Amino acid sequence: MGNFPGHAIPGSFFLFFGLWWTIRYSVMWARRMGGRNTGSAAEVCCNNGPGRFLKRVPVEGLCKTMFGIAGIVEEQLVAHWTLIDPRTQQFHELDIWQHNTMYLFFALNGIFDILIAMRAPVPSGIDYVSLSLAYSVEGLLFFYHLHGRIGLDVRLHRLLVLAAGLCAAVSGLEAWKPGTLLLPMVRTACTLLQGTWFWQVGWILYPPFPGHEWDLESHENMMFVSMAFCWHILGILLFMSVVYTVVYHIYQAKEKQRGTELELGPLSSHMLQAHSDSELD
Amino acid sequence: MGNFPGHAIPGSFFLFFGLWWTIRYSVMWARRMGGRNTGSAAEVCCNNGPGRFLKRVPVEGLCKTMFGIAGIVEEQLVAHWTLIDPRTQQFHELDIWQHNTMYLFFALNGIFDILIAMRAPVPSGIDYVSLSLAYSVEGLLFFYHLHGRIGLDVRLHRLLVLAAGLCAAVSGLEAWKPGTLLLPMVRTACTLLQGTWFWQVGWILYPPFPGHEWDLESHENMMFVSMAFCWHILGILLFMSVVYTVVYHIYQAKEKQRGTELELGPLSSHMLQAHSDSELD
Amino acid sequence: MGNFPGHAIPGSFFLFFGLWWTIRYSVMWARRMGGRNTGSAAEVCCNNGPGRFLKRVPVEGLCKTMFGIAGIVEEQLVAHWTLIDPRTQQFHELDIWQHNTMYLFFALNGIFDILIAMRAPVPSGIDYVSLSLAYSVEGLLFFYHLHGRIGLDVRLHRLLVLAAGLCAAVSGLEAWKPGTLLLPMVRTACTLLQGTWFWQVGWILYPPFPGHEWDLESHENMMFVSMAFCWHILGILLFMSVVYTVVYHIYQAKEKQRGTELELGPLSSHMLQAHSDSELD
Amino acid sequence: MGNFPGHAIPGSFFLFFGLWWTIRYSVMWARRMGGRNTGSAAEVCCNNGPGRFLKRVPVEGLCKTMFGIAGIVEEQLVAHWTLIDPRTQQFHELDIWQHNTMYLFFALNGIFDILIAMRAPVPSGIDYVSLSLAYSVEGLLFFYHLHGRIGLDVRLHRLLVLAAGLCAAVSGLEAWKPGTLLLPMVRTACTLLQGTWFWQVGWILYPPFPGHEWDLESHENMMFVSMAFCWHILGILLFMSVVYTVVYHIYQAKEKQRGTELELGPLSSHMLQAHSDSELD
Repeated sequence: MGNFPGHAIPGSFFLFFGLWWTIRYSVMWARRMGGRNTGSAAEVCCNNGPGRFLKRVPVEGLCKTMFGIAGIVEEQLVAHWTLIDPRTQQFHELDIWQHNTMYLFFALNGIFDILIAMRAPVPSGIDYVSLSLAYSVEGLLFFYHLHGRIGLDVRLHRLLVLAAGLCAAVSGLEAWKPGTLLLPMVRTACTLLQGTWFWQVGWILYPPFPGHEWDLESHENMMFVSMAFCWHILGILLFMSVVYTVVYHIYQAKEKQRGTELELGPLSSHMLQAHSDSELD
Repeated sequence: MGNFPGHAIPGSFFLFFGLWWTIRYSVMWARRMGGRNTGSAAEVCCNNGPGRFLKRVPVEGLCKTMFGIAGIVEEQLVAHWTLIDPRTQQFHELDIWQHNTMYLFFALNGIFDILIAMRAPVPSGIDYVSLSLAYSVEGLLFFYHLHGRIGLDVRLHRLLVLAAGLCAAVSGLEAWKPGTLLLPMVRTACTLLQGTWFWQVGWILYPPFPGHEWDLESHENMMFVSMAFCWHILGILLFMSVVYTVVYHIYQAKEKQRGTELELGPLSSHMLQAHSDSELD
Repeated sequence: MGNFPGHAIPGSFFLFFGLWWTIRYSVMWARRMGGRNTGSAAEVCCNNGPGRFLKRVPVEGLCKTMFGIAGIVEEQLVAHWTLIDPRTQQFHELDIWQHNTMYLFFALNGIFDILIAMRAPVPSGIDYVSLSLAYSVEGLLFFYHLHGRIGLDVRLHRLLVLAAGLCAAVSGLEAWKPGTLLLPMVRTACTLLQGTWFWQVGWILYPPFPGHEWDLESHENMMFVSMAFCWHILGILLFMSVVYTVVYHIYQAKEKQRGTELELGPLSSHMLQAHSDSELD
Repeated sequence: MGNFPGHAIPGSFFLFFGLWWTIRYSVMWARRMGGRNTGSAAEVCCNNGPGRFLKRVPVEGLCKTMFGIAGIVEEQLVAHWTLIDPRTQQFHELDIWQHNTMYLFFALNGIFDILIAMRAPVPSGIDYVSLSLAYSVEGLLFFYHLHGRIGLDVRLHRLLVLAAGLCAAVSGLEAWKPGTLLLPMVRTACTLLQGTWFWQVGWILYPPFPGHEWDLESHENMMFVSMAFCWHILGILLFMSVVYTVVYHIYQAKEKQRGTELELGPLSSHMLQAHSDSELD
């Protein structure tokens, strides 16, 4: 919707998943790094304890699906499920229907995630492909959303399309080459970027506090927003670096503690490892 | 041709091949999945029974070639095989000749398919490259088809170019990395998308039922068509999901039935499998 | 130069190399196919007899270099090696200097080919990269060549840029993944396409026979040229198919003849093969 | 900054790193070539002596970081760290802040290089990704920098964006496929190209010697600059060829000298090699 919440809500969804993935992949990475450095838990990319629970119950897929449906319902409370104005026989409320289309594709991606977690027979890679598709649809709709808009508005949305296009490209590459850690990281960063940029767009086009309207034709403002986009990237990089460092040190501390416990106990680390490995298969 | 059948006929061709491929690749996928789950028929990607016949007689290539030639003949009944107007000495009927050029490239792809099925000495990968070329030529012609058109018309054809470009890209990737299942699926989806979108374009630009003319300059209509394109994608995804699920369950049921028969018979499953494998080579 | 020979001469150069490569790669392919079918000469991608001579003396590189230098000298006979008009202190004859720049990069690629053939220490893949660079420079110059031109002229040159860009992309991919047969074939086809299209552009913009001037603003002509581009592709495909078929059958006939001779002679085919293999290393 | 030094300073930074990498990768390549030809030091891509020192102390990362910070400080001496003009409440000095953003990302890349050299736990490939990001940010800012500019100015900056985009693409490919020699060479060439082109842009837009102002609307000048860009590429290629040849011959001479010494000494070349190999691990 063309107002501040209409940009803040999808932005928050992207931020939520960006944060989720930041933590998820940082833990995965700390494990791999730890495994390589300490010689134990080598190349185990699945969590134990709460991680195992998260693997059984498809929390991520459920969140995507629920958020998607919630977004649709919330927007349709305004549009009353009508696409064609009964009086003029013209299309109306197209903004809302376009947002709904986007939510629908993310919900669809969530359903595929749930199916995969339930070990349903789905083609492998469909989770990445459907995610890439959801981002592509978002990018496509925003790209054709610009018709008849001006200066700053166009540029703000183009940068959003750029972020969405990057997400789509990276997700597509993940389907092509799964198992890397770098691609999910880049996808996480791009998703966070979309989230913060949605907030930024809402903030500029529909200022929540009156008295700060932006001049949509100003050359200075247009120069500023492309720079602000880069600053968002910078902030996200710094944030992710902090999270990765903290997670790494927590993991290292736990590993050390676990190593000390194991020295006192009757089981060697290798036996325990072999045990947990065989359970995972 | 600039009328409804001129868009519905190529659309139907694309839908035909899209449906064909949907079934073909769903069977192939069900076999692979079944093979992985039940331990038999592992990685056999060729059909038995009717499938073997389809492999010997290049039905797909023959269809492509015949449809291509039929399309050319049908359009030339209007154009009378003249490219230059004898009175004005100018080019005329260029729409028809452009459509013919497209048909010709698909017919050419069909001929390569036939040659490959006949085990003629052709460079490996030429089937994918010629298919990619056919889609590229289609995209190129439509891209340069837009000269002097307006608003909605341009957007409808750009989305068609996008679908054709995706098909061309995916077919090219298949030549690069054959043997995956995901790429043929994406190609199938894009081909179905082209088919339904051809119908949609015909429906909007040349409404078959009078009284539903679309305003080609309306902002609402332009917003709607980009969303409708996404809905087509959604519908195709749902359709393919249903087909894949049905095919998978039919295959599973047949496998179970076959398994029961084998338990009663004198031959073990493994011996039968080895037998059929050796026949296929 | 802005006249008919100025387009026919580079076109002829591209046609020459396209024909050269068509024959070269068709022989290579027939060998591989023959090797796979008859069980001898497996995976030998270098010629014997005249082929071996061609491998020692870098004919291809020498041709590229000489043609490049010849093109430069021929064009500079008109420009008298002056880039800045001494009277107006402005740049002049920029068309000629741009053509010279293109020739220079192809000559450079020829020099790298010669160095590789002479087993000089050059980074591997530099031949493909420098070829890709030559095509890119050509595409870049033609792309920025369009400033201030109109309708048909722009479209003709854009299609030329498209062909050059394809050549550059395929050559780049060859550096990435050498040893395939499909990529050189595609490169050959694109080079032939550039050659014939150069002739076509010269024919349309500077008709060699008076009385056939083209209307550069006509919508029909613009529609025609994009279709003509596809017809060029079609013609090249048919031509290459014929050459490949003829070469294949000649090779098969020779193999059969050689096979008969070998049966009568004292040496077995395998020994001979091993002998020639060891010589090649 | 919109003056000659504002283009010459970043240009010099790029030239510095381009030269650095030219020498570094030429040594690496000479080693590999030497290793392949003489049978010793096979596939050792790390330097001994000074090279080992350079590997311990992250000279490259430190340079990047210091240059980045120096650039920021130098520019902020003019801008006084104010982004919003206190009188007009509008953004001002945006050029300087945009340049600072670019410097910042290169500094960030330098910090990652230092972390990697210090064997800090960072995700592998982050050095290439952050370098690619720095080039991308540069390209993005320059791309959106063109608003409201004219003819020659736009073209000069577009070519800069092209060079930056090439650098970003090649760095990204290096993260995808590390360990090649060709990709770093291409990256080096593109970085040198950026360096010389920055100087060229400064020279044209802000001539350091009065009386040589360029007409920004002249068709001839626009034709010339696209050709000049190609000449820069040519010059860089020739320069790199000379450096590679010189380094190769120096390395060969040293190898020969070392070989002679070894013949007189008590240790065989192979033992020495095995020794230094084991030290490196």
